[in-house]
Formats: sequence, structure tokens, C-alpha cells
Amino acid sequence: MVTEKFKSKGKAPKENPLTSEGLYPNPESLYAQDSINLGILNRLVGQSILSVDQFDKELVLEICKFAALLESTEIASSHPLDGKIIITAFFEASTRTRLSFESAVLRLDGKIISIPTGKVTGVAKGESLSDIGEMFNAYGDLVVVRHTQTDSLDEIMQNLRLPLINAGNGSGEHPTQALADWFAILKWKPKLKMDNIRDDDKIHLGILGTPGSMRAVNSFLRMSLLFKSGIRKISIISELADPLGPELETMLQESTMEFTITNDINDVLSDLDVVYMNSIAFLGDSYKTLDSRFKLNAQSNLKDDAVVLHPLARLDELDPNLDGTNHNLYFTQAHGAVFVRQALFISILNRFDRLPSKSIPLKT
Amino acid sequence: MVTEKFKSKGKAPKENPLTSEGLYPNPESLYAQDSINLGILNRLVGQSILSVDQFDKELVLEICKFAALLESTEIASSHPLDGKIIITAFFEASTRTRLSFESAVLRLDGKIISIPTGKVTGVAKGESLSDIGEMFNAYGDLVVVRHTQTDSLDEIMQNLRLPLINAGNGSGEHPTQALADWFAILKWKPKLKMDNIRDDDKIHLGILGTPGSMRAVNSFLRMSLLFKSGIRKISIISELADPLGPELETMLQESTMEFTITNDINDVLSDLDVVYMNSIAFLGDSYKTLDSRFKLNAQSNLKDDAVVLHPLARLDELDPNLDGTNHNLYFTQAHGAVFVRQALFISILNRFDRLPSKSIPLKT
Amino acid sequence: MVTEKFKSKGKAPKENPLTSEGLYPNPESLYAQDSINLGILNRLVGQSILSVDQFDKELVLEICKFAALLESTEIASSHPLDGKIIITAFFEASTRTRLSFESAVLRLDGKIISIPTGKVTGVAKGESLSDIGEMFNAYGDLVVVRHTQTDSLDEIMQNLRLPLINAGNGSGEHPTQALADWFAILKWKPKLKMDNIRDDDKIHLGILGTPGSMRAVNSFLRMSLLFKSGIRKISIISELADPLGPELETMLQESTMEFTITNDINDVLSDLDVVYMNSIAFLGDSYKTLDSRFKLNAQSNLKDDAVVLHPLARLDELDPNLDGTNHNLYFTQAHGAVFVRQALFISILNRFDRLPSKSIPLKT
Repeated sequence: MVTEKFKSKGKAPKENPLTSEGLYPNPESLYAQDSINLGILNRLVGQSILSVDQFDKELVLEICKFAALLESTEIASSHPLDGKIIITAFFEASTRTRLSFESAVLRLDGKIISIPTGKVTGVAKGESLSDIGEMFNAYGDLVVVRHTQTDSLDEIMQNLRLPLINAGNGSGEHPTQALADWFAILKWKPKLKMDNIRDDDKIHLGILGTPGSMRAVNSFLRMSLLFKSGIRKISIISELADPLGPELETMLQESTMEFTITNDINDVLSDLDVVYMNSIAFLGDSYKTLDSRFKLNAQSNLKDDAVVLHPLARLDELDPNLDGTNHNLYFTQAHGAVFVRQALFISILNRFDRLPSKSIPLKT
Repeated sequence: MVTEKFKSKGKAPKENPLTSEGLYPNPESLYAQDSINLGILNRLVGQSILSVDQFDKELVLEICKFAALLESTEIASSHPLDGKIIITAFFEASTRTRLSFESAVLRLDGKIISIPTGKVTGVAKGESLSDIGEMFNAYGDLVVVRHTQTDSLDEIMQNLRLPLINAGNGSGEHPTQALADWFAILKWKPKLKMDNIRDDDKIHLGILGTPGSMRAVNSFLRMSLLFKSGIRKISIISELADPLGPELETMLQESTMEFTITNDINDVLSDLDVVYMNSIAFLGDSYKTLDSRFKLNAQSNLKDDAVVLHPLARLDELDPNLDGTNHNLYFTQAHGAVFVRQALFISILNRFDRLPSKSIPLKT
Repeated sequence: MVTEKFKSKGKAPKENPLTSEGLYPNPESLYAQDSINLGILNRLVGQSILSVDQFDKELVLEICKFAALLESTEIASSHPLDGKIIITAFFEASTRTRLSFESAVLRLDGKIISIPTGKVTGVAKGESLSDIGEMFNAYGDLVVVRHTQTDSLDEIMQNLRLPLINAGNGSGEHPTQALADWFAILKWKPKLKMDNIRDDDKIHLGILGTPGSMRAVNSFLRMSLLFKSGIRKISIISELADPLGPELETMLQESTMEFTITNDINDVLSDLDVVYMNSIAFLGDSYKTLDSRFKLNAQSNLKDDAVVLHPLARLDELDPNLDGTNHNLYFTQAHGAVFVRQALFISILNRFDRLPSKSIPLKT
């Protein structure tokens, strides 16, 4: 007899288990009464996504609006990526990120060829990345690449004639993570998309980590500057004296954004509206874990309506006792990443015409 | 010139190469003149499959009847799992079991996201299994998990809102293996499904191994107790003095089933109707091989009509010179596992309505 | 803003990015005004592909003609391998070859179950290859196997009832690579398919490597003998005194083909029309790299219209400064391999009836 004990938690699985959880902000707030502007998304057709510097605020907003619609709508039966092969080439293994991309592809009925780890490839035997890029031309329609080396993408793109999405290059960038981060923030507080925001609605953004050497934090900070009209102040919390490095330092200076650097989260925590955390710092090929002054839990002095972001996986810097609280925006952030990536695949591969026009209102 | 030498063995491949081999018992015996009782199978909708204790005899029989129909019928073109993503998360690598599940999914036109080994996941870096479970919510519709730790499932299910199928948890259980085992036995001797069986038709069941610490043997023994009306006696052959452990010992005592324990197969072999073997014992993360008093070959003193089961892979405890004999039920057992798993996927994901109603007779 | 810098190189991706590159010979030359002769291709139905010795010239030509048509035609929407599962079992890991086979399957809408490395299979724990073969019967419709051991295929095929394609067995053969090699050569010089070729059109073929112990070179040399009407002379360049071994030596003698053996490419380079290179020699389970007398670059004394073949991956024996020159036939060779493999899958699985009859003219 099947007993209550073995029932899967919550409700029986639905077509899309993500869209109906009370915990997560309603994506509809992002696109309500608004059609998708193809004039803007068309800028992505055939493009590679390498850096946040490719985006302006208008484009980020349109991608997030499109992602929100994909999150709210059942579109699998229209098979938008039918016949397309996406190569997921994770020379640096990352199950979480690989699965997020692969789930996005499969939900759209695309196909996947996968390199789950660089350890068994020709690269391990000495093959050049530019030869690997040439190989990809023959096998797929788009390549998602993660690599431990920051300059790996230049080499791969030397012979590549397919669009490439950077899923993390060494201590460089992780632009689709930044899109997922801001997708979550915009669902939480849609007002931030406006150009004129009342001072009361502006946020104080805290970033734990080292933007100069951590790719996710780097990309998040760059994208945050596109939304400076909604940000009152940025506080960077790091154990390093110079967590930014010269390039980001200059960007921040030129943006006229108010920012501070501190080495203890408690200096600023009680004033933060958004806390962005990341446990993992890249030092060459190895990782380094942050110490206890950079940890959060349910007892931390968070404002009542503050939210926490973390591009998971986490270790002990982010206590699971925050999971059940309203501060938890990191699960929304992780789940939304699938839809941001769907939006990119459809746009880059120009498959707007496969979308069900009733559920996805397009404006040319 | 293509010569005879290079022809693939046997016949040219058919749509379903498993259904027409003379070697295997005819699955039709299990469902002939009988429709599938949805009232019973509906109990599986949205459920996780963690332990044999979830099943009663009625449910096992209906799953086996459904599996037999799936084995005999060409249903791929009805795409029963269309749009569904199954995550095969083998934190403990097992190519054979993973491929069996993945083949079942693909034959039903479902899609797969795979973690073929735990060595490259976030878990290896210290991520918690409950965070992994939360991640799965975003990526698929059902998760198949194998793990070296017995308590791994509790942790994964903490945040999981999808149904989970246990494909082997440490020294715990392997319930779909037990379904495959009994699917083979019931095809071999359909009479065993009856509640009133003549004494002459009852079987003497021999189990080589340590049910208390080997998950496949544990699950097989638990399921065998559901069929006690057809079992005359159970003999457990093990090198240990107490191969059952307290929980199974109590279950057997309470079942009033006659059973004995011996440490040499030759004590009972000539009286056994069914011999269940398993080469691999779990001792923490490592394996242990049984010695020569627990081996079978074509020279062993098997009854003429006795059959041997083995949830493969085998080492030298089961000699390939038995493969060509009528004692070989283990190949039937391995092949049938694909259809048992198909039956579970369709039932848990409630895709009965996608089945071709002409070939799969359903009764609500 | 998306800047020019991030545009993917070349044009926006098309349905089939391989068919429109000026660099590659036009595949249409191979099948123009000619229909596919099913009477010949039908010889492949249900067959395993183990060795070049299975082929005659007529069959190789028909496979190449079929591959050329597949390369020139958009056929994905006809789903030729719908419902078929191909198992890619790379007990010896090879990302490049695995991806080539998997891309071929997915472009035809077949499904894939993959063993990307032998390190996590039952074989690693001691399971026999014949048991693995028996397992494959239950899970798929065709198996692609690569293995480090030359005699591995005999063992796997013992119980296998599915067709098998040899994707490289130890120091044995690699027959689909030889098909890809000759597909490229025939696209480059279609005259070579004729039986009567003017002496001026015959080629001098140079082979760098050790056919007796390198599987790709072995298979290439065997297939070259089928085209001896178009070959003036074969020169084998090797650091070994006897690079052929007794079997190939006898084959060459009996073919009456003129051939020489030298240990320096410069002895023959200026007279060669086709140079076949391979960097990797198998010595048991390990590799060995050739030294500098066996290297090519843009400064080498190549004839103006000579072409270079290399079954990649390459190390430093083939300089990338040849990539942009007309000598580069190796990229064509790599890309064409996908279509040769498509032609084999459709033929072996007898799915000619799924092809769009307008675009693929078939003659029975």
C-alpha cells in the first residue's frame, strides 16, 4: 500500500512545477499588459554572449520580460528549438550550471551534446581549444562553454562559426548568471526597472566577495551599474583591501555611483536591502572559502524586507535556516536562471516564429 | 562486399528486439484477457518509490501486468512521456542501472538530464544533498537517484517537490530491482500470482547473500513476502551467522513463512525451484565478493526446472556456461527491468491518457 | 549594447552550418544527376561495421554519394531515426569521435544513450564484455563501440543481437574514419571514383604513420586499395623499418600497387598529391608522438594543389598555419564524417522510407 509517508512533498507534479510556488515572486509583474519587443531582442540573433558589457538596460529588461513570460506560460508543445543541437562544453565541470542550461534546452525541445568534464577530452591530451572550436562547427548550432581559464574563450572562438554562450571563464565573467540575478531582483521589486525612482524606493546593495577575481560577482556588479537609477549605494564586503581591481574601480568611479568597501558584513548589514553572496573565489584552478565575518543566518541583523541572493552552490556561508524565510531570494534566482537561458536560446537562434502567438505576445 | 561474418547476430533489429526471443517467457501470459486496472495504478500518481514496503501484492501484480503489456506492444509512437524531463542522478555510478532507466525514458519519448557520477558534482565540493534536491525542482519532472549512503534519500527529499525513484541507496533498498525480479518470476510461473495455490505448485526459494546489508537482496526478500501464498519455504545461504538483521528477522517471523539459514548452497540446492544470487555486498563504500561455496555453474546440482535470478553485473559466482540453459532467468530479469520502469514512469507521471487505447486496454 | 566584437564569426547560424562554407569542396559534385542506388545500400541493412574488408568500391561510392546528398539537403524534419536508440559506448574515451556520432544521430532525430568513459562501468569492476553486449540488447537498436583492446569486439558481439559500429578497436581498425577520409578525397577529386582514369589524373598518396599498429591509418590504407585505379603510387613515411606488418604487406604486394617506404617525409613530399597524417600511435594502452621529420607546416615543400588529411585531434605534427590554405582538406574530412555516419545509420537501420523522396532521390 502506498502510504502518505512516501508521497512526494507538496503537490503532484504539474507541467511546470516552478510557476505555482507561493514562495517565489510572481513573474507576471514583469510583463503584465506588455508585449515582447522583438526590435530589441533581435539584437541577440546570431550573437555570442561573452560579457555583461554587451548589454544595455533596455536589453536586460526585455530578456527578463521574455523570461517572465516563458516562466508563466506552457510553451513546450510548440517545440521552439526543434532540430537545434546545443553543445554544453563544461571543460570545468559544474553539474548545477550544466543542468540548468540542459533543462532550458530540453524544455524547448532542443537537443543536447554534452562534454560534462574536460578530463576526458582531446584538450587533456594536448589538443588546442581553437581546434575544438572548429570541431564544434560540425556538430551543433550553439555552444555553451565553461572553462577554468579566463582567456579560453578567445582561443575557442578563433575558428568557431557558431554563437557561444559564456557559462563562466576562469576569473572572468558569467553573464547569464548576472541575468538570472537581476531577473530575480526585478521580480522581487519591479519598480527598479524604471528610470525615475523615488529615493525611498532605491536600494542599498551589499556585495560579499571579490568582484575583481570572482566571475559571478564581477558580472553581477557590471550589470548592477546598468540599474544605477534604482541603487542608492553599493557596499562591497571583502577580506581584501582592493577587491575590485583597476578596471572595475574605474567603472565604478565613472558611474558616479556611491560605493564603499568594508571587511565586515556587520558594518553595513542592517542598512542593506539586497545582499549578494558568493562562497567561492577563484585563485587559478583552485578555490578558497571565505571566513566567518562573511556569513549569514536567520539570526543575522537583516532588515525585515531585505533579500539575499547567492548563485549557489553554497557551503556554510549561507545558513539553511534562512531558506524558509522571506529573505530567501536565492531559490527564486536559481529557478529563474532556466527561463533566462530559454530566452537567450530562442533569441540567439531566432526561433521567435515557433512561439505560440496567443500566449507569447510579440511586437515587431 | 559485406560478408556473412559481419552480420549482426540473430535477426535484423526490429522495432523492439526484446519481444521475440524464444529464450524468454512470453509476457502475454501475465495480462491475457485482462485489462489494466487504473484504479490500482492511480495509487502511484505523484508518488515517490523509496521502499518495497510501499507495495502490496495487488499493486505489484498490476505493475507487472502493465509492464508485460508494454513489453508486448509497440507504443513509442504515442509518445507517452512527451515533454517530461527525467533526471538520472547516479551519485554512485552504475552504468547498467542508469542505462536501463534511460532506455525506459527514451522508448517513451521522455527526455533525460544525467548525472552519471557524483565525482564532479557540487556534492563533491561540499554542497548538501538537500540543496541538490532544491535544484532538481527547477530542472525536471522526476528524479531517479542512486547513492552510496543509506540515509541520502531523506536528505535529498527535504526540499524536493518532484517524485523520486530510489535506484539503490547504500545498504538500504532497491525497490525497482525487486519489481524486475518478480516480473521475471511471474512470467516464468504465472500461477504464483494466485492466492490459492496447490502445494505442488508452491516454490522453494533460495537466496544467496546478506539481505540485512545488500539492498537488492533486501528488497527482493521483502517483496517475496507479498507472494507468500506461493512460497513453500525460503532458504537463505550466507557466510554470516545472522544475514538478516533484526528488522528482517522480525518480518520473517511475523509472516509465519518457513525459512532456514545455511552457509553452503549445496545443503539446499537440489530442492530449490528459484535461486536468487547477488555477487556484491555493500560494506560502507566498498564491495566484498563471496567465496566459492556460493557459486553456480552448469555442473551444479540444480533441479531440471529450477531457474536462477541475478541482478547483474556478475563476477565469477555465476558461470556463463549457464547462459544457454533453461535455468537462465537472469537475462529475462535484466531485460524486463526496462518495462517495469516504463510502467512506473507512466503511472507516477499520470500519462495513462497518452497510451494507445487499442493496444493498452485500460479499465477505470 | 551588443557590439560588433561579440558577433559570432562569419554568418548567423543556418539550419545546417556545414553546407555553405566556401572552403569546403561542394558535395554536389558527388551525386549530381544521380539517384541513390538502394540495391547497393540495402547490403548494409542489419549489418555490423567492423572492418574495411566488408566494403567494395561500389559500396563505398554509394555511401559517399548518400552522405553527399545528406550534407546538401535539409532532412531533419523527416525524422529518419525517430524512435531509434543508439548506444555510444566509448570504453576508450574520445570526445571528438563520440560527438561526431552523436551529432549524426541527433540530426536524424534518433536518441542517444551514452557511456562516455569506461572508467565508471561494470567492466571496471570486472564485468565481462559479453555480459555488456547482452545488456545492450535490452537498451537500444544499434551500438557504437570504441575500446582500447583490439579483440574487444569479438567479446562484445558474443551475445549481441544488435548491429555494432566499430569506432576504433585498439590497434585494429576504424572503418568509419576511412569512409570519412575517402568521402573528403572524393569531394576534392570526384574523378577518382572512375575505373578508367588517365595517368595524369592519378594521385601519389603519402601516408605518414604506422599502418600495422595505428587503426585509422590501417583502415585508410585498406580502403585506398579499393581505389587503386586512381592511385599512381603509395609512399609510406614511418620511423619504423616495417610499418606495415605481414598482413598489410601481403595485401599491398597482391594488389600490385606500386609502393615505397621511407623514414623522412622530405624524400617524397614534393611529389605527393595527397598527404595522410596521424599523430597518434597506439602502443598497448598508451600513445606515442612522432618526431619532427614527420611534421608539416605552410613552409613545407607541398605541391600547389596537394591536400592534407588528418583524422584529428592533432598535436604539433600539423601546424595551424596550414588551416587557411588550400592544402587543408582535414577540416572537410572532419565535418564530412558526420554525414558518412548518418548514411550508415539510415542504411543499417533501414530507414530509407523515412527520407523525403523529393530531396533524396532513391532508386530501388
